[in-house]
Amino acid sequence: MSGVGFFGGLFEFKGFKQPVLVSSVDGVGTKLKMASALAKHDTIGIDLVNHCVNDILTCGAEPLFFLDYMAMGRLVPEQVESIAQGLAKACREVGCALIGGETAEMPGLYAGKDYDLVGFIIGVVEKEKIIMGKTISVGDTIIGLPSSGLHTNGYSLVRKLFGETKSSLGAYYPELGRTLGEELLEPHRGYYHQLKPLLPFIKGIAHITGGGLMGNVPRVLPQGVTAKFHSRAWTIPPIFQLIQRQGNVARNEMYRVFNMGIGMVVICSPDNVDRLTQALPEAKVIGEVVKQAGKARIVINDK
Amino acid sequence: MSGVGFFGGLFEFKGFKQPVLVSSVDGVGTKLKMASALAKHDTIGIDLVNHCVNDILTCGAEPLFFLDYMAMGRLVPEQVESIAQGLAKACREVGCALIGGETAEMPGLYAGKDYDLVGFIIGVVEKEKIIMGKTISVGDTIIGLPSSGLHTNGYSLVRKLFGETKSSLGAYYPELGRTLGEELLEPHRGYYHQLKPLLPFIKGIAHITGGGLMGNVPRVLPQGVTAKFHSRAWTIPPIFQLIQRQGNVARNEMYRVFNMGIGMVVICSPDNVDRLTQALPEAKVIGEVVKQAGKARIVINDK
Repeated sequence: MSGVGFFGGLFEFKGFKQPVLVSSVDGVGTKLKMASALAKHDTIGIDLVNHCVNDILTCGAEPLFFLDYMAMGRLVPEQVESIAQGLAKACREVGCALIGGETAEMPGLYAGKDYDLVGFIIGVVEKEKIIMGKTISVGDTIIGLPSSGLHTNGYSLVRKLFGETKSSLGAYYPELGRTLGEELLEPHRGYYHQLKPLLPFIKGIAHITGGGLMGNVPRVLPQGVTAKFHSRAWTIPPIFQLIQRQGNVARNEMYRVFNMGIGMVVICSPDNVDRLTQALPEAKVIGEVVKQAGKARIVINDK
Repeated sequence: MSGVGFFGGLFEFKGFKQPVLVSSVDGVGTKLKMASALAKHDTIGIDLVNHCVNDILTCGAEPLFFLDYMAMGRLVPEQVESIAQGLAKACREVGCALIGGETAEMPGLYAGKDYDLVGFIIGVVEKEKIIMGKTISVGDTIIGLPSSGLHTNGYSLVRKLFGETKSSLGAYYPELGRTLGEELLEPHRGYYHQLKPLLPFIKGIAHITGGGLMGNVPRVLPQGVTAKFHSRAWTIPPIFQLIQRQGNVARNEMYRVFNMGIGMVVICSPDNVDRLTQALPEAKVIGEVVKQAGKARIVINDK
């Protein structure tokens, strides 16, 4: 948190030339229901914080502080504590202050042990360092960073396909090397530490959340270009194949609902590809920026 | 929004000497259920924004921007639009940018047309102008600003006492001059415009939310002093008398759950009382700061 002083629960700005605040609000969707079904609440806070941190990282912002909102029908202290531990852990990891929030008990709105969990993050970036994708041009390279699983998207579909009973979530799948429940609760991966030192060499970043590659990449593209992906350039993790088989889900639907193994997309000029892939050993070149022909902003080539 | 420039959805700071950020997150509690019972959603957003703006005003902060989170089982477009109109209206009123938010559809978490609504606000105050109550001392005067009704607290109790059927909420009460439902949906009052020009003359501000006078005033008091209120100094609005009668609620419980007609408490030195009461015609001197004797930080004298 360079240049920011903590001041009695408030934040004082210091040492920024032209600070620009970047904020985001997010929930974790029905991954919550998975956590409840498995009575495991210590990682859902990690999901939430990492989701928020990744969101503002797409502008090049570093996280300053985080607030949470938890609402439930009946306050279950050990559940609240467990959730809060996850939040605190993930905030600590990125040097973001968890400056509090609100816990609301709302009988009649939330049933049983159900709860909702919302995160608000504020970050900062120097104006001259904002990443907006404006300089992306034909010939630029698209690099994909692996996701750790579903992250926080597609859970409504997964719940419909597999149910959320103890037996369905407890089933062991050899291709996953663990139970379905363990796989589905894998925390949303955070990319802050990996990407921060590399931001000066990056033209655009897309966080692959709801909407998948199809929905999230177009936002960072300037007019007149299309992002062309080569799906063979990366391995689609077994969980997505399992979901596709289970529900006989169409390929395009899969790419629209799930991240398909890519948690973050980074676009850079060809000059910087080596630098980035050397610094990010798990990252892969997965596509390139081409001239737009027709309406499509995203093309996924399976050949 | 003096000194703050809007920059492509982000915020640039300009012209502050020592800006301190002040943030708050809040919901509107089960007032939501009232809105749903009466199928009137265009004021609940006003409740939320005003609640948040008042919260950060207690530090002397002016609102910069606001984000909302709406979650529901099934997206009902006209309901979402109606809520958003209230948010936008209240933000406009205080010059606060509504820079977006998140709308989540979570089947299985929210029943029927139920929804939750959360607000997140960021404001700013010059470091040297922060109001923290530190200078409050024995002999200072306590001024109360009238609430517009229950604001956003005590609805769970009210729903228990009166129910939430169309007939109970549609009942006309002569002492209210309107139906119970109309009274209960009266928006949370905002105090920003009234108090902003007076901030230099104020030592401490308490927003009377959940916990009432009992719960919210102690937070701004320094060690060694007690806030002594004279309940006869103001008129407790009929709605609170109605609730008390209906539930045979103990007096102390009433003061702990409801604002009892005081939405904001302002503490100043005796020198500034005339200036404040002249500028705030509805405000009343409702107490004074005395030396603490015993444990009580708050005393409410009914004589």
